[in-house]
Amino acid sequence: MTYQEKLTAIRSQMRGEGVSAYIIPSSDPHISEYLPDRYKCIYFTSGFTGSAGTLVITDDFAGLWTDARYFVQAGEQLAGSGFELVKLKVQHAPEYIQWLAERLAPGAKVAFDARLISVGLAQLLEQQLVPQGIELVSDRDYLEPIWLNRPYLPDAPAYLLGEEITGEAFENKLGRLRAALATSKADYHLISSLDDMAWLFNMRGSDVKCNPVVLSFALISQDAAILFIDTLKFSEADQDKLRNAGVELQAYDLVERALASLPAGSSILIDPKRNCFALYKELPTSVSVLQDTNPTTSFKAIKNAVEVENTRITMVKDGVALTRFFKWLEESVGKETITEMSVADKVLEFRAAQEGFVGESFDTIAGYKAHGALPHYKATPESDAALKADGLFLLDSGGQYQTGTTDITRVVSLGNLTEEEKTDYTLVLKGMIEGASARFPKGTRGYQIDAITRKPLWDHARNYGHGTGHGVGFFLNVHEGPHVFNATPTPIDIELGMITSVEPGIYRPEQYGIRIENLVLTVPDETNAFGEFYTFEQLTIALIDTSPVKKQLLEAHQVKWLNDYNQLVADRVGPHLNEEERAWLQAKAKAI
Amino acid sequence: MTYQEKLTAIRSQMRGEGVSAYIIPSSDPHISEYLPDRYKCIYFTSGFTGSAGTLVITDDFAGLWTDARYFVQAGEQLAGSGFELVKLKVQHAPEYIQWLAERLAPGAKVAFDARLISVGLAQLLEQQLVPQGIELVSDRDYLEPIWLNRPYLPDAPAYLLGEEITGEAFENKLGRLRAALATSKADYHLISSLDDMAWLFNMRGSDVKCNPVVLSFALISQDAAILFIDTLKFSEADQDKLRNAGVELQAYDLVERALASLPAGSSILIDPKRNCFALYKELPTSVSVLQDTNPTTSFKAIKNAVEVENTRITMVKDGVALTRFFKWLEESVGKETITEMSVADKVLEFRAAQEGFVGESFDTIAGYKAHGALPHYKATPESDAALKADGLFLLDSGGQYQTGTTDITRVVSLGNLTEEEKTDYTLVLKGMIEGASARFPKGTRGYQIDAITRKPLWDHARNYGHGTGHGVGFFLNVHEGPHVFNATPTPIDIELGMITSVEPGIYRPEQYGIRIENLVLTVPDETNAFGEFYTFEQLTIALIDTSPVKKQLLEAHQVKWLNDYNQLVADRVGPHLNEEERAWLQAKAKAI
Repeated sequence: MTYQEKLTAIRSQMRGEGVSAYIIPSSDPHISEYLPDRYKCIYFTSGFTGSAGTLVITDDFAGLWTDARYFVQAGEQLAGSGFELVKLKVQHAPEYIQWLAERLAPGAKVAFDARLISVGLAQLLEQQLVPQGIELVSDRDYLEPIWLNRPYLPDAPAYLLGEEITGEAFENKLGRLRAALATSKADYHLISSLDDMAWLFNMRGSDVKCNPVVLSFALISQDAAILFIDTLKFSEADQDKLRNAGVELQAYDLVERALASLPAGSSILIDPKRNCFALYKELPTSVSVLQDTNPTTSFKAIKNAVEVENTRITMVKDGVALTRFFKWLEESVGKETITEMSVADKVLEFRAAQEGFVGESFDTIAGYKAHGALPHYKATPESDAALKADGLFLLDSGGQYQTGTTDITRVVSLGNLTEEEKTDYTLVLKGMIEGASARFPKGTRGYQIDAITRKPLWDHARNYGHGTGHGVGFFLNVHEGPHVFNATPTPIDIELGMITSVEPGIYRPEQYGIRIENLVLTVPDETNAFGEFYTFEQLTIALIDTSPVKKQLLEAHQVKWLNDYNQLVADRVGPHLNEEERAWLQAKAKAI
Repeated sequence: MTYQEKLTAIRSQMRGEGVSAYIIPSSDPHISEYLPDRYKCIYFTSGFTGSAGTLVITDDFAGLWTDARYFVQAGEQLAGSGFELVKLKVQHAPEYIQWLAERLAPGAKVAFDARLISVGLAQLLEQQLVPQGIELVSDRDYLEPIWLNRPYLPDAPAYLLGEEITGEAFENKLGRLRAALATSKADYHLISSLDDMAWLFNMRGSDVKCNPVVLSFALISQDAAILFIDTLKFSEADQDKLRNAGVELQAYDLVERALASLPAGSSILIDPKRNCFALYKELPTSVSVLQDTNPTTSFKAIKNAVEVENTRITMVKDGVALTRFFKWLEESVGKETITEMSVADKVLEFRAAQEGFVGESFDTIAGYKAHGALPHYKATPESDAALKADGLFLLDSGGQYQTGTTDITRVVSLGNLTEEEKTDYTLVLKGMIEGASARFPKGTRGYQIDAITRKPLWDHARNYGHGTGHGVGFFLNVHEGPHVFNATPTPIDIELGMITSVEPGIYRPEQYGIRIENLVLTVPDETNAFGEFYTFEQLTIALIDTSPVKKQLLEAHQVKWLNDYNQLVADRVGPHLNEEERAWLQAKAKAI
């Protein structure tokens, strides 16, 4: 079926039921960002491969609402699909709701699949559409009848991690969670978010590409902890370990029945952003629902000393892999055929040689010249560009190791840079340094670090259309909340032990893109009469190319930061290299 | 009656009615910041003179919840009153609600006077206390029986301003407001906020100290505009002008009846933050209430070309007055007796000599040495300190002119500064320059400018406990919304034509305080492939003392900004000075 044919088939079902609009989000029953193949509904329906967006289909319009990171990619991928690109003003905002409210008449029906819509999103739809006389039909899957050979749910094995990796036994984590439930006066707590469950039970798997999580739900009370999961994913030993600690294992699809049979008068805590509306609807009306962020989301964001130390070790491994990769690239470009896709394979090869490597933490973004201007570019056989000894090459990649998750962006000069390329590179670096070396009082939030990072770019009337940084998991999802560095006024304090990326950029469409990204750890700084100050430790340990730097654009403290940082990389990575590699790295790390 | 006796009398009434807690906010039926004497309830009850705070009285505790600006002052003023200082973590946050929720048992009653509580605050109280089984008693004024000779409402004259001052006829403003009401589908609109009404009707008066507003309410619909006001405040000519334009004048206290008799099924727009709960309760239940920011608040914040040009002219007048003041201070300190109170009189004298001067825009803050560390210090006969040729002197003052409102803080060295004083002064100046000269993309919010302003202080592990800046009216209130520069995540864009203060500070209790403040106007800057950029024009035109500056702490662009700014001041103010004054100013403005 072509995308046009699929669209026709969906519209035919809509007409048959008098539905005016159908919403297809990028989601699954766990409200995940990375999706199992079974839930890649947007790709199936429209061909768009980006990880954020929403399709809205009406009788006379079919659109993909997505954000600036995907404008160019969506424009290309949607060509001929029947879907048009609608540019979001604010990343992740459900701006299509207002669009629907303005276009639909009272009495119109809006349909969606409640398994793919978060509780919070369903409530927004209700608040904004129902008062206009619009009816919501929340249990329609118009893809199922037309999706031949729709993939099954994954059944990859799962395993438990030891305390030497995680730093805290799951029994202890359960204890902390139960204390939080008691404080919230919640009798029950439903967790659907896969990373929260992986963290809570010290459980990992490979059900979802790049995210070492396991498809499951959990229902926790003071007396019981039920993990709804395909039990056979676990070894006998791990099953015993869980059961011995009082964790009951039930089949994945029994969660609905468990929710439907909660005792009358009881209360349940659910995170409206991380549970689907379908499960919410299963709750008896006599159960009172407390809506708040999952306690595990806040717990998980604060890395413990073992996680931090493991992450530090992992970052050196990742730095070794990247050093070897960039040395190889410098020595090979212009001499052999290297393309964006082969480069991605090569990076993976160097990482895979490191002990404890599990897989990529996200799809590698290898963008040469103009492709670097697409912040979430993924090379395809059609787009795959050959690298030459000329211009800028952007590599944004990361690994899952059993001892941590990495995510790093570097841009290197392959030769012959223009003055503008050098200026832009230096300004991005300047922003990265200001953000990643910031000192700030306790209580500072991500939007403040975002402004500090952008200022050097704003000073030169430049900017970027994505956030400055995101939380990062410990051998878990590369995007992890609750904290984020962006302009959205999210009232989450940056706390000690949080890991976040700092990744400003400058993108010149059809020319080049620059982004430089380090992961940083919040650590204590000075405490004085003005209060308690925090700063960041650089977790990422990988050389920053100095060859494009215009030193006169940097302030003295920024030059010092850059030189100190590159020397730190040489000192930490060097001992793991052979002599030739070490010499190459030390030469590259030379102070400017 | 002593404060202790008043407290006893209030508690006696509480006990008589079984009330567990009584709340006294700093407010009036217009939810004003500056209050008519009749509503200075906190001062009457506790002796605290600050402009922000809340008293909460229970059987065994009486507290004043206020923010960091007032900690020292409140500590002193509350001594012996029976009230204890409770330090707010977040400025203006009603943190006492949580405090009550934790302490009161189900069945307890919390009382307040609904005329002094905003609709929004009443809703917060309901949301957070009623689910705990606490009852709200919203019509209790326990002060009335014990307040002998309580002041009457003011009856100062009011007058209309011409278009040469305001740039827009009130008929036109009413038209814009009605268009907004039509868009919101609101049949009626109640305005209680005095500055909104002053702006809307181009009306000024002197009912409230420092705020040139007139006590009134307004009820607007597509067909009618009723101004509830003591009609006799206006001249016959102004009454005619209003009536001829279709504005109906009714007595101030008829507003309640008008609200109570709104037609069934109609809708009314009210701003929950700027109307009192007592009026809200008058609305028939059949009237649907739309809660949103007053459209006039957004309109008023964007100054038109006439207001901007008038403000520019006003700022030069203010600069002339301040130049003469600081010259007089420099020449007189150490030679004659000068105290904080006499200094405030002197500043007023120099401003009063300027054409169009109406009065102070707020109580002058003249803080010598340690008193400068109290951000909202007001000298009293007991505290009044004599200035000597030594240390730092902080002056935060402003004027109401018929052509604009000023608000400026300068700190000058009177001699013998320590290295720390010089460092702190330079860092505050650095923050002020970074904030007030920022370039930023359209869509930037106040919390981003706040971070940029604070960064130079954070870099040196210093900070300040108040916001960075506030909106300023045009011949209106010196604090004006909706925009603000502070760390609170307020989602209000900084728009072209807005006037805001930039006023970072460093305070060392019992030593000294430094704050430097300019008012800035948002103006267009470059537009390019990265979008539309804005920047700030310096509206304030008054010398910044360079004698305490440590040049090595400033970056080159900051030194240039400072030198250019002081030269601009000399160029603009100079022509209005006599030769001797001009020579003094030019010498002071000399580049560093």
